[in-house]
Amino acid sequence: MKASQFFISTLKEAPADAEIVSHKLMTRAGFIKKLGAGLYNYMPMGLRTIRKVENIVRDELNKAGCVELVMPVVQPAELWQETGRFEKMGDELLRFKDRHDRDFVIQPTAEEVVTDIARQELRSYRQLPKNFYQIQTKFRDERRPRFGIMRGREFTMKDAYSFDRDVESAGKTYDGMFAAYSRIFQRLGLQFRAVAADTGAIGGDRSHEFQVIADTGEDAIVYCPTSDYAANIELAEAVSLIAQRGAASQAMEKVTTPGKSTCGDVAELLGLPLSQTVKSLVLATDETNDKGEIVESTVWLFLVRGDHELNEVKAGKVQLPDGTGLKAGFRFATEKEIVAHFGTQPGYLGPVKLAQPVKVIADRTVANMADFVCGANDAGFHLRGVNWGRDLPEPDLIADIRNVVEGDPSPDGQGVLAIQRGIEVGHVFYLGTKYSKAMNATFLDVDGKPKHFEMGCYGIGITRILGAAIEQRHDERGIVWPEAIAPFTVVICPVGYDRSEAVKAAADELHAQLLAKGVDVILDDRGERPGAMFADWELIGVPHRVVFGDKGLKEGLAEYQGRQDAEAAKVPVTEVLNHLLSRLQIAG
Amino acid sequence: MKASQFFISTLKEAPADAEIVSHKLMTRAGFIKKLGAGLYNYMPMGLRTIRKVENIVRDELNKAGCVELVMPVVQPAELWQETGRFEKMGDELLRFKDRHDRDFVIQPTAEEVVTDIARQELRSYRQLPKNFYQIQTKFRDERRPRFGIMRGREFTMKDAYSFDRDVESAGKTYDGMFAAYSRIFQRLGLQFRAVAADTGAIGGDRSHEFQVIADTGEDAIVYCPTSDYAANIELAEAVSLIAQRGAASQAMEKVTTPGKSTCGDVAELLGLPLSQTVKSLVLATDETNDKGEIVESTVWLFLVRGDHELNEVKAGKVQLPDGTGLKAGFRFATEKEIVAHFGTQPGYLGPVKLAQPVKVIADRTVANMADFVCGANDAGFHLRGVNWGRDLPEPDLIADIRNVVEGDPSPDGQGVLAIQRGIEVGHVFYLGTKYSKAMNATFLDVDGKPKHFEMGCYGIGITRILGAAIEQRHDERGIVWPEAIAPFTVVICPVGYDRSEAVKAAADELHAQLLAKGVDVILDDRGERPGAMFADWELIGVPHRVVFGDKGLKEGLAEYQGRQDAEAAKVPVTEVLNHLLSRLQIAG
Repeated sequence: MKASQFFISTLKEAPADAEIVSHKLMTRAGFIKKLGAGLYNYMPMGLRTIRKVENIVRDELNKAGCVELVMPVVQPAELWQETGRFEKMGDELLRFKDRHDRDFVIQPTAEEVVTDIARQELRSYRQLPKNFYQIQTKFRDERRPRFGIMRGREFTMKDAYSFDRDVESAGKTYDGMFAAYSRIFQRLGLQFRAVAADTGAIGGDRSHEFQVIADTGEDAIVYCPTSDYAANIELAEAVSLIAQRGAASQAMEKVTTPGKSTCGDVAELLGLPLSQTVKSLVLATDETNDKGEIVESTVWLFLVRGDHELNEVKAGKVQLPDGTGLKAGFRFATEKEIVAHFGTQPGYLGPVKLAQPVKVIADRTVANMADFVCGANDAGFHLRGVNWGRDLPEPDLIADIRNVVEGDPSPDGQGVLAIQRGIEVGHVFYLGTKYSKAMNATFLDVDGKPKHFEMGCYGIGITRILGAAIEQRHDERGIVWPEAIAPFTVVICPVGYDRSEAVKAAADELHAQLLAKGVDVILDDRGERPGAMFADWELIGVPHRVVFGDKGLKEGLAEYQGRQDAEAAKVPVTEVLNHLLSRLQIAG
Repeated sequence: MKASQFFISTLKEAPADAEIVSHKLMTRAGFIKKLGAGLYNYMPMGLRTIRKVENIVRDELNKAGCVELVMPVVQPAELWQETGRFEKMGDELLRFKDRHDRDFVIQPTAEEVVTDIARQELRSYRQLPKNFYQIQTKFRDERRPRFGIMRGREFTMKDAYSFDRDVESAGKTYDGMFAAYSRIFQRLGLQFRAVAADTGAIGGDRSHEFQVIADTGEDAIVYCPTSDYAANIELAEAVSLIAQRGAASQAMEKVTTPGKSTCGDVAELLGLPLSQTVKSLVLATDETNDKGEIVESTVWLFLVRGDHELNEVKAGKVQLPDGTGLKAGFRFATEKEIVAHFGTQPGYLGPVKLAQPVKVIADRTVANMADFVCGANDAGFHLRGVNWGRDLPEPDLIADIRNVVEGDPSPDGQGVLAIQRGIEVGHVFYLGTKYSKAMNATFLDVDGKPKHFEMGCYGIGITRILGAAIEQRHDERGIVWPEAIAPFTVVICPVGYDRSEAVKAAADELHAQLLAKGVDVILDDRGERPGAMFADWELIGVPHRVVFGDKGLKEGLAEYQGRQDAEAAKVPVTEVLNHLLSRLQIAG
């Protein structure tokens, strides 16, 4: 293609609202153009990359036996009411009424519609397993859209939904999708990691996020460099950092700690390591009646070591031997509740001598501590030399309730954990019968009886991948696209295309030769000066560049430079094609 | 592809709400599946055809120098307010508010957004002409969605928008798009006709509809079989059917015609040809004040011959020598208005002796009539032997205000007109500066001064093409797809695939051979009985079918049948591949 037949638009400055490098570079390089908050035009340059991503995703899913369809952007509320999501989902679900005053949503996902298709179309176990996918526009009315198309409101997503006859078959489907996703991200040319993720109310261990590695990523990824272990921070298991509880060696002592309301302050004051302190966190749960009014609230005390952080996902799953627990809907306790139960204000709380009975949940590490420091439930005072059993009862529950930290032992016993940042671009998830039961979607099994489908769902954020790829691959000059998804693979930059016959001839010939080989090439015939022209293509991030100029051509030379090469290399004009083809691993 | 890896779903019965054959067949063959009123899932089979249509459209537009982008489905109201369309468009424009109570629309087209892009991005005449297009989901909240995806609410449309520096350049762009559209519909394999269409308020002669010919089409297409003339019925020019007005040969006479309120009834009663009668139609226009309240209404009398029909588009364009006219917003007069102006009720109206002064607009043919029959403005009476000049004044305006009929002379003088039915699937339209002026979209021209873009817009109803193709091409067994857009080009039907080694081997081999040649083939390995299997593929409309069975294979024979062939032909197994390739015009 020639640049004059295309549309190239680069900017020197990034827009004021661009906070992250991918948003800045995508806008400056003309990949996207803002239309409104969280709404972006996919400009011609960006659309080329989006299509390449889509085609890789489509190809691998088709090979994995998935079948493509398209479900409407606009969906009737009735189906969403069947699963309760029409009411349950927050303001992110965009709801509206049509001219006849009927309720609709703009799809953020399509579980309801695809389950409706399945319950009508998949009538027999003979038709199973079946995995439908679409690459379709999605909308989430984010309260505060940001980061360009990384967290926009309208975006393009690939969503797949599988239907199996039993758990075993669903497991095989899950594994197949996991493998397909791994191939997809390999082909995209991105460094990624598949990490185990929380399954929430579904349970089980079948949820993985595919994270593109980037220092700027929103998510913390936990992995063991010497084993296969990898999980997101919400899920990664934290073992006890103390092998077993030591014997008490100190008497419990009340110490004055005025104005020292954090573990760090107290440790410093007492000249003790932070790891000798225990942090007290007070959570609360509410019981409601049919009308949604709160009828009773319960307060819970969670203990983690002073240098650790509470993991709220893990906390939400805590269940005591008596069956009570936080379930999903907990909150932090109010100051009033804290004073009522602990007799003091936050900053000096602890598990010893509670004003009111409160269930105590200790992190595994805390449960093994001896001679520790905690609040005295008395403003301006802490206790030191505290020991379980002697100074306070054993905790009601010992559980993994903290985030892992770098250097923690890997839960598989195969090394120590490292943490890196990632951007979630894909998710595979075993749904079980959650949706098929809610919508009574059944098939006739081999015994002739109706049975609910075992389902899975599998998402890939198509447009998000562009942002993630740029966060991972950029330098001070611009984007560094992987070859597979660059908008163009090769750019030919002729210096003086409109005034030198020789330059024009050389550029046109290589352009034609590359097109004949199926290479995605662009010839920049805009007539820009060399500096501006090179800067544009480095900003845009095309992997391979060939420059023809009069001076070089007189010596029979062209210049080749890979996007990541420090310098251009002189290549005989007669060798340029072969040089490129060998770089592109295409037979000459 | 093997059928077991795909999704095939056929129905014996069409849904109750399917009124037309394309809706019935598309549903029965599993191309679409209804989700709600005017909302359809594109099922895997249908999506294959949609993608093939899209790819042909995309290929030809790229060759024509258009550049693809994608504009959001959800668009801010602000831009639509700039052109006034946010208020002016009726309930078909779906409007909604987001969580922050801001107004948005779901795009039915994208003139506003693309003009917003152009006014920011196209700054210099050097960047022109530029033609942006998208293939994107559209939504129109039709009051009464029907005909499946032919008149759905959500649909897929290709919309292109061109930006030129002057009228001459815009004309070249228009011609280029007209040519690209002609190539597109040729490649789609459809019989079509490009017809001149009304340009409404824009004026000029640059509006063409691309109509797929089908007896069941909604639109009447007028064309001259012996010349290039073609126009839609709204636009097609009707010349006078009487060369010049004859002399009066009868005296005017009032005849009693009780209960005969139509021209047909009166002609029969009087024993005269219908073409001797004149039909009186009373239209009205309203003047409104700033608040939109009607302050004055005017009544107009339109006269067409008894066997002709008023053309409302032409009527709306009528302008009298004094500058008055109907403009766009006319209506039929109320009975009260008719009585006030004519002194009688509808059915006996005429232009002779009006109770109140009314401007009279006569069709060209009517103006040349002599000794004609019309209502007497007296209930139960008509006049016969009426003559212009003698019995009533000459009309205030003589104009083309009727629909042409079969056999009318072609306005180019090259023959007579024929009429056929069509389905509009494409439209090319010169917009001029309508949008660029409303949105103040300018570029710097060669003289350094800002100038408004000359624009054009160009639509193709991607999903509508499926319906139109089926209306044109079907038989009692199902759809007859053109090869270019059939969901599969070849189907291999093995009889006993799961029990005969020979059948399986022959089918698998041909399948592999065709795939290697790049042929879009499906092997039906579902294990259906031959009758059901053949019926499915005839319903689906695959152009070429090969059948392998044990009996034939013993004699070294396979069966080939084209979708439109009356019978299957025996072909030696060794020749099947070449037989198919020669039919598909692929080198062996």
